[in-house]
Parts: sequence; structure tokens; C-alpha cells
Amino acid sequence: MYELLHQKIREKVSLTDEEFKICKEAFVSKRLRKHQYLLQQDDVARNLAFVNEGALRMFASGEKNGELTIQFAFSGWWITDNFSFLTGEPTVYNIQALENSSILLISKQAWEGLFDRVPSLERYFRILLQNNYIATQRRLVSSLCQSAEEKYLSLIKAQPDIIQRIPQHMIASYLGITPETLSRIRKQVTLTK
Amino acid sequence: MYELLHQKIREKVSLTDEEFKICKEAFVSKRLRKHQYLLQQDDVARNLAFVNEGALRMFASGEKNGELTIQFAFSGWWITDNFSFLTGEPTVYNIQALENSSILLISKQAWEGLFDRVPSLERYFRILLQNNYIATQRRLVSSLCQSAEEKYLSLIKAQPDIIQRIPQHMIASYLGITPETLSRIRKQVTLTK
Repeated sequence: MYELLHQKIREKVSLTDEEFKICKEAFVSKRLRKHQYLLQQDDVARNLAFVNEGALRMFASGEKNGELTIQFAFSGWWITDNFSFLTGEPTVYNIQALENSSILLISKQAWEGLFDRVPSLERYFRILLQNNYIATQRRLVSSLCQSAEEKYLSLIKAQPDIIQRIPQHMIASYLGITPETLSRIRKQVTLTK
Repeated sequence: MYELLHQKIREKVSLTDEEFKICKEAFVSKRLRKHQYLLQQDDVARNLAFVNEGALRMFASGEKNGELTIQFAFSGWWITDNFSFLTGEPTVYNIQALENSSILLISKQAWEGLFDRVPSLERYFRILLQNNYIATQRRLVSSLCQSAEEKYLSLIKAQPDIIQRIPQHMIASYLGITPETLSRIRKQVTLTK
């Protein structure tokens, strides 16, 4: 149950067996059925989740253009609403399982407590957050200056698994375009192949 | 010269005097005249910069809608192209002084070396990167689902100093709208006050 977590951490930092034992004791495992919510708007994000198997999606509902997809998370990825997790304020987002999923949860208190006992985990999360920051900044630049077609082609290149596994209307809401625009672009891309 | 750096770090983590002495020895100071570049497109971002005084701007040029402002940095803020800084790849951005500025620079090697000698600095940057990630995610959500007017009003509320100190065409390129649209919104906002 903890193999993937161990592998992902060791890709970025080194950990002794004793340190990983401390680490894994801070998590609890949970299964989510397809469509089940991990977090709902107005709740507080008490946990950070590591996806062992399956796929989750964080989204805002009730936007004037319908749902807005903030983030997907597949096997080996982390997901939470960082703002709510850090501040204890209610979230404005929802996190839902897109497939039957198996996750590991860690509370904020356990997460912060780990850093004193296993300092290389603080390094792991510093690196992870830096990568997330870079990726989000790129997505921002793309949303500000790319056409709908350029955004779609960038996504195919960067994350082909999203195109395969995720329903079209959710991909549209991730790119900030309408499902009709996405459908038109997909036809054009297919024709020009 | 290091007072503001000391203050900003102590707002998030505690440091002994000896630790801060190690920290400040890793920096070199630099002055930038107004309009001077700290980083230009195709260079590698060798340094992370802490702004002591003045104001800097990171932007992409040559976008089809003109310049795109990625980030501003005022007194007490950090700025670099994180992707280039971390990977050693050439940057696609420029960083320029908007006013005569005084900054502190730290190289990647010195920055990473500090974390082994002063672990609480790794915590400081983990917290800082987490906050930057949250702020960038918010700006992304705003760019995907807010109207031009809503974006401008959010910016006034969140960062009134930007409105005061930054030329209008740069604010427009930060919001991803045209200068003409920004001018029209400003007139409407003034009229309805």
C-alpha cells in the first residue's frame, strides 16, 4: 500500500528505512467509489491526499461558465485545496473521484509534525511545491496568451493521459473553453493529422 | 542591508544569529537603475533575487497580444524564473527594474547549500513556495472565469500598491486585457464611485 509513496519520495530525496516507517505511520488509507467526494465546498480541507490508484478532480462549481476544473490527480500525485489545508478556512472547491480510487490521507498536524522528525520530507515537499508553482505559472501564461487550439495541443503534448482518461466536458472546463469549442478543435486536429 | 531579509525570514521561521550570519554570507548585493535588466530572454536564471528597495517586473515579450506580465516584485519580495533557476535551461522571460532598485542575489548552488547548514531556511522556502503556488492558482482561476472588470476590482482589493506604482499598460498586460479595455473599466469604476 505504501510502495508508490516510497518510490515517489525517493525520486526526489533519500530516506532511511526508519524514516520511511515514521512517514507511513502518519497516513491513513481510504477507498473512494467513482463519483464519491473527498472534499465539498464550504468544508475545511483537513487532509492532504496521495493517490495510490484511480483519478480525482478538484473543481469549482457555480461559476457563470459552469464548472471550472482546477486540477486532476492520477496515481502518484498529491491533491488538496492548499489554501484551506493551510489556513483552516472553508474551501471554495470540491474534490471528487473520477474512478474507483485508493488514496492515503495525512492531516495537517501530522504533516507538519513529520518535518521535525524527518527533515528530508520538508525538502521533498519544497521541491514538489516548487514544481507545482512552475506548472501553475505555465498554465496561467497559457490561459492568458494562447488560443483555444494552442491550449488543447499543449495539453495533448504535456499530459496525454488526461486526454485518454478524462471526459471531454471536464477537459474543456480545465482549459477554460466551452465543450462546443473543444469538439470543433478536436475535429480540426483529427482532419489535419 | 540585510535587515529586511532578516525580518521577512523571521516572520515565517525562527533563526539563531549564527544561522542568519551563515545565510547573509550567501548573498551578494546589487543595484539596478530604472529600466536595467536583471535577466533577459535566452539567458539562464543563475540567481534568485530578494528586493530590498524598488520594484521589478518579470514579463514575456513577443506574445501575439504584446507583452505579458508574469509577476511584479516590490520591497521584501523574491523574484526569479523558477524553471530556469532550477533546471539551468534558458529562460523565456525578462526581469527588469521598474524603478532604481537595490537587491540581494543568491546563486542556485549557494541557495541549495544553505538548506543543509540552516534547515529552517528550507522550511521558510517551503512555506513561501506554498503561498506562491496558492496565489498563482487563484490568479489562474481569475483569468479563466472572471470578466475584465472583476479581474481589475480583485487586483485593487488584493494589491492596491500595484495600482499606485505601476504604469497602466503593464497592469493591463498583467490582467491579460488590452490597455483600451483597462482604460474603459477605470472610467466606469471612477464614475460609479
